[in-house]
Amino acid sequence: MILLADRIITGDGKTVLENTAAAVSEQDGKILAVGPLETLEARYGGPVLRYPGCTLLPGLVDLHVHLSAWGDKPFGYAGSDFSHAYITLRNARNAYRTGVTTIRSVADKNGLLASLVWAAEQKVLDEPIPRIIPCGNGICMTGGHGSEFPDGGDIADGPWEVRKQVRRNLQSGAQWIKLLTSRREFIPEFTQEELDAAVDECHRRHRKIAVHSGVPVTIQMCIDAGVDTLEHGTFMSPEQARQMIEKGIAWTPTVMVYSEYAKKTGNPHYQAAAEAYRANLKPYYDMGVLIGAGTDVPVDIHGVNTYLELEYMVEYGLTPLQAIQIGTQNGAKILDLDQVTGTVAPGLAGDLLVVRGNPAEQISALREVEAVFQYGACVYGAQA
Amino acid sequence: MILLADRIITGDGKTVLENTAAAVSEQDGKILAVGPLETLEARYGGPVLRYPGCTLLPGLVDLHVHLSAWGDKPFGYAGSDFSHAYITLRNARNAYRTGVTTIRSVADKNGLLASLVWAAEQKVLDEPIPRIIPCGNGICMTGGHGSEFPDGGDIADGPWEVRKQVRRNLQSGAQWIKLLTSRREFIPEFTQEELDAAVDECHRRHRKIAVHSGVPVTIQMCIDAGVDTLEHGTFMSPEQARQMIEKGIAWTPTVMVYSEYAKKTGNPHYQAAAEAYRANLKPYYDMGVLIGAGTDVPVDIHGVNTYLELEYMVEYGLTPLQAIQIGTQNGAKILDLDQVTGTVAPGLAGDLLVVRGNPAEQISALREVEAVFQYGACVYGAQA
Amino acid sequence: MILLADRIITGDGKTVLENTAAAVSEQDGKILAVGPLETLEARYGGPVLRYPGCTLLPGLVDLHVHLSAWGDKPFGYAGSDFSHAYITLRNARNAYRTGVTTIRSVADKNGLLASLVWAAEQKVLDEPIPRIIPCGNGICMTGGHGSEFPDGGDIADGPWEVRKQVRRNLQSGAQWIKLLTSRREFIPEFTQEELDAAVDECHRRHRKIAVHSGVPVTIQMCIDAGVDTLEHGTFMSPEQARQMIEKGIAWTPTVMVYSEYAKKTGNPHYQAAAEAYRANLKPYYDMGVLIGAGTDVPVDIHGVNTYLELEYMVEYGLTPLQAIQIGTQNGAKILDLDQVTGTVAPGLAGDLLVVRGNPAEQISALREVEAVFQYGACVYGAQA
Amino acid sequence: MILLADRIITGDGKTVLENTAAAVSEQDGKILAVGPLETLEARYGGPVLRYPGCTLLPGLVDLHVHLSAWGDKPFGYAGSDFSHAYITLRNARNAYRTGVTTIRSVADKNGLLASLVWAAEQKVLDEPIPRIIPCGNGICMTGGHGSEFPDGGDIADGPWEVRKQVRRNLQSGAQWIKLLTSRREFIPEFTQEELDAAVDECHRRHRKIAVHSGVPVTIQMCIDAGVDTLEHGTFMSPEQARQMIEKGIAWTPTVMVYSEYAKKTGNPHYQAAAEAYRANLKPYYDMGVLIGAGTDVPVDIHGVNTYLELEYMVEYGLTPLQAIQIGTQNGAKILDLDQVTGTVAPGLAGDLLVVRGNPAEQISALREVEAVFQYGACVYGAQA
Repeated sequence: MILLADRIITGDGKTVLENTAAAVSEQDGKILAVGPLETLEARYGGPVLRYPGCTLLPGLVDLHVHLSAWGDKPFGYAGSDFSHAYITLRNARNAYRTGVTTIRSVADKNGLLASLVWAAEQKVLDEPIPRIIPCGNGICMTGGHGSEFPDGGDIADGPWEVRKQVRRNLQSGAQWIKLLTSRREFIPEFTQEELDAAVDECHRRHRKIAVHSGVPVTIQMCIDAGVDTLEHGTFMSPEQARQMIEKGIAWTPTVMVYSEYAKKTGNPHYQAAAEAYRANLKPYYDMGVLIGAGTDVPVDIHGVNTYLELEYMVEYGLTPLQAIQIGTQNGAKILDLDQVTGTVAPGLAGDLLVVRGNPAEQISALREVEAVFQYGACVYGAQA
Repeated sequence: MILLADRIITGDGKTVLENTAAAVSEQDGKILAVGPLETLEARYGGPVLRYPGCTLLPGLVDLHVHLSAWGDKPFGYAGSDFSHAYITLRNARNAYRTGVTTIRSVADKNGLLASLVWAAEQKVLDEPIPRIIPCGNGICMTGGHGSEFPDGGDIADGPWEVRKQVRRNLQSGAQWIKLLTSRREFIPEFTQEELDAAVDECHRRHRKIAVHSGVPVTIQMCIDAGVDTLEHGTFMSPEQARQMIEKGIAWTPTVMVYSEYAKKTGNPHYQAAAEAYRANLKPYYDMGVLIGAGTDVPVDIHGVNTYLELEYMVEYGLTPLQAIQIGTQNGAKILDLDQVTGTVAPGLAGDLLVVRGNPAEQISALREVEAVFQYGACVYGAQA
Repeated sequence: MILLADRIITGDGKTVLENTAAAVSEQDGKILAVGPLETLEARYGGPVLRYPGCTLLPGLVDLHVHLSAWGDKPFGYAGSDFSHAYITLRNARNAYRTGVTTIRSVADKNGLLASLVWAAEQKVLDEPIPRIIPCGNGICMTGGHGSEFPDGGDIADGPWEVRKQVRRNLQSGAQWIKLLTSRREFIPEFTQEELDAAVDECHRRHRKIAVHSGVPVTIQMCIDAGVDTLEHGTFMSPEQARQMIEKGIAWTPTVMVYSEYAKKTGNPHYQAAAEAYRANLKPYYDMGVLIGAGTDVPVDIHGVNTYLELEYMVEYGLTPLQAIQIGTQNGAKILDLDQVTGTVAPGLAGDLLVVRGNPAEQISALREVEAVFQYGACVYGAQA
Repeated sequence: MILLADRIITGDGKTVLENTAAAVSEQDGKILAVGPLETLEARYGGPVLRYPGCTLLPGLVDLHVHLSAWGDKPFGYAGSDFSHAYITLRNARNAYRTGVTTIRSVADKNGLLASLVWAAEQKVLDEPIPRIIPCGNGICMTGGHGSEFPDGGDIADGPWEVRKQVRRNLQSGAQWIKLLTSRREFIPEFTQEELDAAVDECHRRHRKIAVHSGVPVTIQMCIDAGVDTLEHGTFMSPEQARQMIEKGIAWTPTVMVYSEYAKKTGNPHYQAAAEAYRANLKPYYDMGVLIGAGTDVPVDIHGVNTYLELEYMVEYGLTPLQAIQIGTQNGAKILDLDQVTGTVAPGLAGDLLVVRGNPAEQISALREVEAVFQYGACVYGAQA
């Protein structure tokens, strides 16, 4: 099968290929080659899906989704774990509508996302779902961020309870660990010892950890602990950005959610946050911080709006190609999946997004989803 | 939309219409009219789905399914309630493969089937599922039938615990109540007072109750209590059959499962059961007992084999049209859904089954499913 | 195999056969025939076990044993359920030392004796144990007799809790039910409604019930409820004895334990009890009350001293043969096992006791156990 | 009592005595002397048990048995702790069939084996059982190896929970402690701090600890912690073997179970394990690692197949005498019982095994058990 659009954005942050098609294996769904249509047709034959006026790019990778978000949780029996499973399945499938093919879901009931992944692997599900990396439930301290929600995080205090909770989440099928250690206040939640324990427990088990931290004091503690991804990192200082690079810690800034809340609520904290992102995103990107895209909003029936996160990144100074790299190649790299997905390149999965228009020029073209493929199978939209 | 096969079996136990089509509304999925193709085309227009060599009949109604059956329950986190929800969704969808469009599911974890129904109603599910009437978990006494299974029935002893458990099940979304009161021994489990309490609690709440009872002593107690459907009723006497008619109690004999077990195991109890069915099914049908079809076997990935229950009923003396009536109109009537489904008649839902061949002559033609429609939408097989 | 002693006491309360042997099948352990040695040798051949100076009689049947009695329960882990299983196995085996081959064990932890029976049936045990009829735990009211012991009875109040507890015990493998409803005070414990519920729950399940009751008021309630065996029944009136006969209720008087306590403690209650037994045992036997033997003392490493119960019965007026009938045939009859054991008769199990001397003349000869057989296998003593 | 076979293998790994008998005291069951028959007869008199064509050696010592293995656990009440006690007694007695007289049972329900030992010591049991050293339940971390089984290990996380669990197990009668810290993955389970705590808690209580560890990373952690025996130690490096010697840590390689599983399943992990054992067993033995025999398979009604572990050791390069030393003297030494059992030497218990043939030449002669003695009493087979 060969896909042909007006251009391919490979996802590396700079390359746009004109007059180029991509061949995808119908056996294993992987990209066979990227090149001139004639060459591919001659070599691989098969149907050609033509998308004139469109752009082909990698399926989006979102690092910060709460995929089990209920929207409004129903009352009574309809609020059961069984219903939650169905809601989560719907949410997962809806991510395709906005071109998202890989999701790290941070903080869901333990076992929920792992069971969904199990059901997909066992062919229990009739229909495909995006690649999901479950984190299990968020770990927070007593009274810490996460503990205020009805179905909130799992509470742990002290280094050994933190380790025990990490172990529980892994036992429940988590592939990454999520921990939360700040609210809006410039006050830390977990102690350094607890953070160190969480990170060590993950790393010695060959697992990675994403930590919610927005304010300078906890950002520094997270950097010192050696977390793998810093979630939000809203008020990160240049010096901290430097240390992030040095230590190889990635950043999921989630600029959209803060910026939108700033507009909607006028809340000073969110306004300060939006200003911080506007001021720092491009400088830190230019310094070399590895940045990924994360939306951090409850998914809804319309999908996971990663495209909007990328639009804000362009508004805050990045080029569209840089933003797209963040939403594709970088996400895959952060998840250690860059040999699997995230770019349009031979050998990688045929996780592909076709949008109308040219997002390299106009990032909002990402909203105009024409078709989505996962492992070469059309999972949303018209198969040309 | 008009469906045309070689004939229509309406489901009333006697009518076969040749050269007759059925028009189904594309608005509400209900059957508009049944009549000559030309008349329907003139009146309603729309596409005509032609199934030459086939028979059109109502979608099947199965009154005794355990729709949440795991097969082999997986270990660890994959054995969660979340996974159970996905398994049950798969089982529900697979029922279409065998032409089943309405299911009463008897004895599943409380809330599981109700959540599935909720998810379907709320459009949380991407794909249609059969109409499901959940019974919640089976209610049994301490040590009674049901309590021996790992995820077994809910235990209640005494009239007030029984009432409380009925209330719990209704609170959890059950639409009928299921209770069990015998094993193979000719010894009762619940007392009359407990059965009376269960029935009264259901009836005063305008709910109905299905009771597992196979041996004469408990059959009589169930009749005296005034249950709504007697499940199995294996060793029912003619006098009891007479009382069933008088009191308007329906019978779900589940002849297939006992007959199959008799063949496979050679177990004397099952053999006696199979002989009792062979001896009594036709006499009791002729007396006027209202009989419904129930398979009572764990569903598997191949669907709910209601067709096999109907085949056994023909083997045990009924005509194919009578067996089909049992598997369609009677089931709907027992569920108070005869104004909704169960026959091919104007005003009812377009729940339709197309099979190759003529089951009015050869009941095993029900195995040859060509297409299945629910509310006029094709849910399995070829849309002609 | 042929057993020959100086005489056979058949257990029917009157018959003593001189110059008579018993042939036992080596296949199924049942008694083949009773007759002259030559006849048996001619017909069956096989080894002849000769016990000169001895008497052959049925193995004893004790209806009131607490077979799981610890003696002194050890501290710490050694007081575990595991240890209790080993103690109970020892106690069961030790019963052979005193010629007891059938035991109804009244009031042990639920599942303990049933597990022992299971282990014997499954050949998990290396060595034989007596035939045991487990009653599960004793059922008593809050504060009632049984509730004062550390591992005491199971508490139930109200007819439905009583029924639930009966159901629990049966689920745990009990074959009879044991209930307690009096201490020494002339005050009832359970109400009539509760007793009626217990009896009804047993009888409708085809099970029998033994009730501890010593004083007139509760004896009358038990008779009215229709229990199967009255345990102790110490201060039973002649009128009550008459009703016992009329209703077919058996009596396990346990005269020994009260008489021994009277001697040892001088306690007036026990002295009154001993006097009542001395006054009433023979009259009630003569009236026709069906009496069984029960020792009711914690078993010890020396065995179950049923012989002593029979000695007291002789002291209180019965003939040795009557006492032996009580300890053999009557016990079997009360347990519905009279076609299985309890007499020396063809077709019954070879449950046999050989004692030195002649207990028909001197009941204390039962103390001189020479050999014990169960189903024809020598389980204690010398195989001649 | 004097035992005479064709030869005595003393168990020291090198000595075979021809024309030599062993005298055992009938008082305390200890070996009085080893020497020429005439000398012993002259000195001690008593019966001479002659086993021509046979070899006398010490009873086998197995360090890694799960003596409470159910086989198929029965349903309902028969799956009780009481039944488990009987199953375990049977398993213990069956060990005699294969010549095993001393067992360290690793990972059983807390209190189960200790209760069995108590019952033996208190003469509650009618028949002898092997010398048993109970470890209580295995200790594992949340999600660690052991936690996946239905009646799995006891969970502990953090050094203080680990210490508490050690204390619980000792309180429940454990004489050694068993801990598990790896599955097949090359990823550690417990942290070093937790392992150190477990070891310290044992050693300061004068107890020893056996740790399940198969992969290099956890083997090193166990060596660093100073455990007493390393169970499996499958992929141990030469440097680690050197450290084992230096620190006096013994090795229970369990070569048979891995080798058998490799053959039966073809599983790559087991195949790699079998190859590692084949490559390393002899070199490490030659280096001086103290090796013991452990079967690690659920016992069955045929006994504990320690002989098969020794056969594999010979297949992997050891001489039969070396293998026998491992299965006798070494096991005793590791358990600090070398002054009690494990060799044929004066002053030690008469724990003796008589096999037909000569296992010093043909190790499989161990399968031909003629008789087994414990403390001089014949516990299995023919007393010559």
